[in-house]
Amino acid sequence: MEVVQVLHMNGGVGDTSYANNSLVQKKVITMTKPVREEAITKLYSTSFPAKLVIADLGCSSGPNTLLVVSEFINIVSNICKKLGSQSPEFQVFLNDLPGNDFNTIFRSLPKTGCGGSHCFFSGLPGSFYGRLFPSKSVNIFHSSYSLQWLSQVPEGLESNKGNIYMASTSPPCVLKAYYQQFQTDFSLFLKCRSDELVAGGRMILTFLGRKSDDPSSKECCYIWELLAMALNEMASEGIIEEEKVDSFNIPQYTPSPSEIKCEVMKEGSFEIDRIEVTEVSWDAHSNEFEGGNVSQLQSKDGGYDVAQCMRAVAEPLLVSHFSEAIIDEAFNKYKRILADRMVKEKTEFVNVTISLVRSG
Amino acid sequence: MEVVQVLHMNGGVGDTSYANNSLVQKKVITMTKPVREEAITKLYSTSFPAKLVIADLGCSSGPNTLLVVSEFINIVSNICKKLGSQSPEFQVFLNDLPGNDFNTIFRSLPKTGCGGSHCFFSGLPGSFYGRLFPSKSVNIFHSSYSLQWLSQVPEGLESNKGNIYMASTSPPCVLKAYYQQFQTDFSLFLKCRSDELVAGGRMILTFLGRKSDDPSSKECCYIWELLAMALNEMASEGIIEEEKVDSFNIPQYTPSPSEIKCEVMKEGSFEIDRIEVTEVSWDAHSNEFEGGNVSQLQSKDGGYDVAQCMRAVAEPLLVSHFSEAIIDEAFNKYKRILADRMVKEKTEFVNVTISLVRSG
Repeated sequence: MEVVQVLHMNGGVGDTSYANNSLVQKKVITMTKPVREEAITKLYSTSFPAKLVIADLGCSSGPNTLLVVSEFINIVSNICKKLGSQSPEFQVFLNDLPGNDFNTIFRSLPKTGCGGSHCFFSGLPGSFYGRLFPSKSVNIFHSSYSLQWLSQVPEGLESNKGNIYMASTSPPCVLKAYYQQFQTDFSLFLKCRSDELVAGGRMILTFLGRKSDDPSSKECCYIWELLAMALNEMASEGIIEEEKVDSFNIPQYTPSPSEIKCEVMKEGSFEIDRIEVTEVSWDAHSNEFEGGNVSQLQSKDGGYDVAQCMRAVAEPLLVSHFSEAIIDEAFNKYKRILADRMVKEKTEFVNVTISLVRSG
Repeated sequence: MEVVQVLHMNGGVGDTSYANNSLVQKKVITMTKPVREEAITKLYSTSFPAKLVIADLGCSSGPNTLLVVSEFINIVSNICKKLGSQSPEFQVFLNDLPGNDFNTIFRSLPKTGCGGSHCFFSGLPGSFYGRLFPSKSVNIFHSSYSLQWLSQVPEGLESNKGNIYMASTSPPCVLKAYYQQFQTDFSLFLKCRSDELVAGGRMILTFLGRKSDDPSSKECCYIWELLAMALNEMASEGIIEEEKVDSFNIPQYTPSPSEIKCEVMKEGSFEIDRIEVTEVSWDAHSNEFEGGNVSQLQSKDGGYDVAQCMRAVAEPLLVSHFSEAIIDEAFNKYKRILADRMVKEKTEFVNVTISLVRSG
């Protein structure tokens, strides 16, 4: 499986689209706004670029795609208003892998400009584990919930039988293979971005990650363990081959804050301005009812919502390995398993956000 | 009809796609190569930008999309080789209206770079009758067979009954309305591009145009007159309403070299380096057989090829005004009419190419 060819969020605007199943990702973006606000405020305390080049890496396709960018533009415009200076021209690059549904993004772009400022939007297809921009041409990089994706499934996972990601039952060599792939990928990412950023340029990255030092910790692996359960169930029912499940592995790594820091320091081009860990419930809808009554909360089918969200993210990977035919059944089982666990346990994603400055 | 929403070449890679029916446009690009070569050679005789920003305006979707750009990159690389200087980084923007099929372009982009040079491709959706780029941020603009499209159907065409474009039977007020729309649009285009180009930057534009001073000259209007015939035939058969044909007008203007020059001089930011008129047969396949025998030539169904080419270009406009249901029939009739005329007459498109330099 070529990750760069296969991986993409479900396109379009239908029931199983990412556009309609990305509420968790939206919540995370909202939660991390203060970090971006601080970064831009600091940027403007030292320089007043007449043109601000902003790139969102792993922009996907849906309401979240323009959320971050329009927020950036608003923050900058407000700062400029306060300082009595003119708003810069914004050149915005929306980046994702070539399989992303850029047509849908382009057809939803605002026709009327951005509140009086000049904003120029482009789509940039390609892997961020490689150069995307000319040297010293970008002021701000942003990425949310994308950098946990690896450039490829790590090699040497043959012994990870019955699992589809790192799990408590994964042998040490599997954990090591995953970690090494993360190190290779993230250090290449940092090298490329350091070439592309202007001096003093900034980068705000949010990973789906973990707090624990243990890479097979439940906080980051459980969501995939439950999908593995669904697939193993199908194998035991003879719907799919056991060997097929054994050889399927998700190209992801959910790093800890210290693992991220470690790569940044090794690469050497960036200063760490801030690092922050937050948590968000698997079921983004549940928090919507905060302050409401309990029966209202329980009436929502969290299992369904989380299964749809994970389907929007992982369906192309599963289709590529197994086939279209197993998808509905797999996600029905997954939904049932999720619903069962979510009432019994606290189920949350861990987000690691890091704010970096390109050294002069 | 909102031209910016409706106009786009047929997407995808099917039988009626632009990708499979754009041989004429390809020939024109090939014919005008010397003008681009000269422009770039001159650009490099005065400056050596470390980064070359190239924008193709109206890039469409298909084999032609990357043809111009890869040619640009080759020309520059060869010049640099000759001069013993290092090849610049290329930042390429592929621009078209938001309805263009960018997904298909993005999935066909070369994965392996451009012969060792750093090339960065972006898609930029939007009308070129408006700002697309930050100030002074582009080195070279290119556009082929796009600028004859107007930003809207001119107002005041009520008296253009029975025609769908300017025609010998169009009243003077119709010709005037078309010309005024061209002036408004092209002068705005020049103003926007002059803001966006760096000093000394270059622009190479090829219009579908005409040689004659008469805007209703057969050389530019006949191709649409024959489509009008097909539609009028359908009206007389009661398949479509006559009123519908009367109210349909193509948002295009095929200017003469002097009309183009006139707008450039009025706008004032550009020096004209070169202007050139060429011709290309409606049936691009026919020339492929030059030197072959006549029976081979006649065995090709030129009517079919030209009708398919025009369909790939005009189908979305016709669907928007008439409906999907009439398309097959309309282009069948058109094909028959074209085949009949093409054996009797010399049928050629006129191309006007202009090479401009942004004054310092």
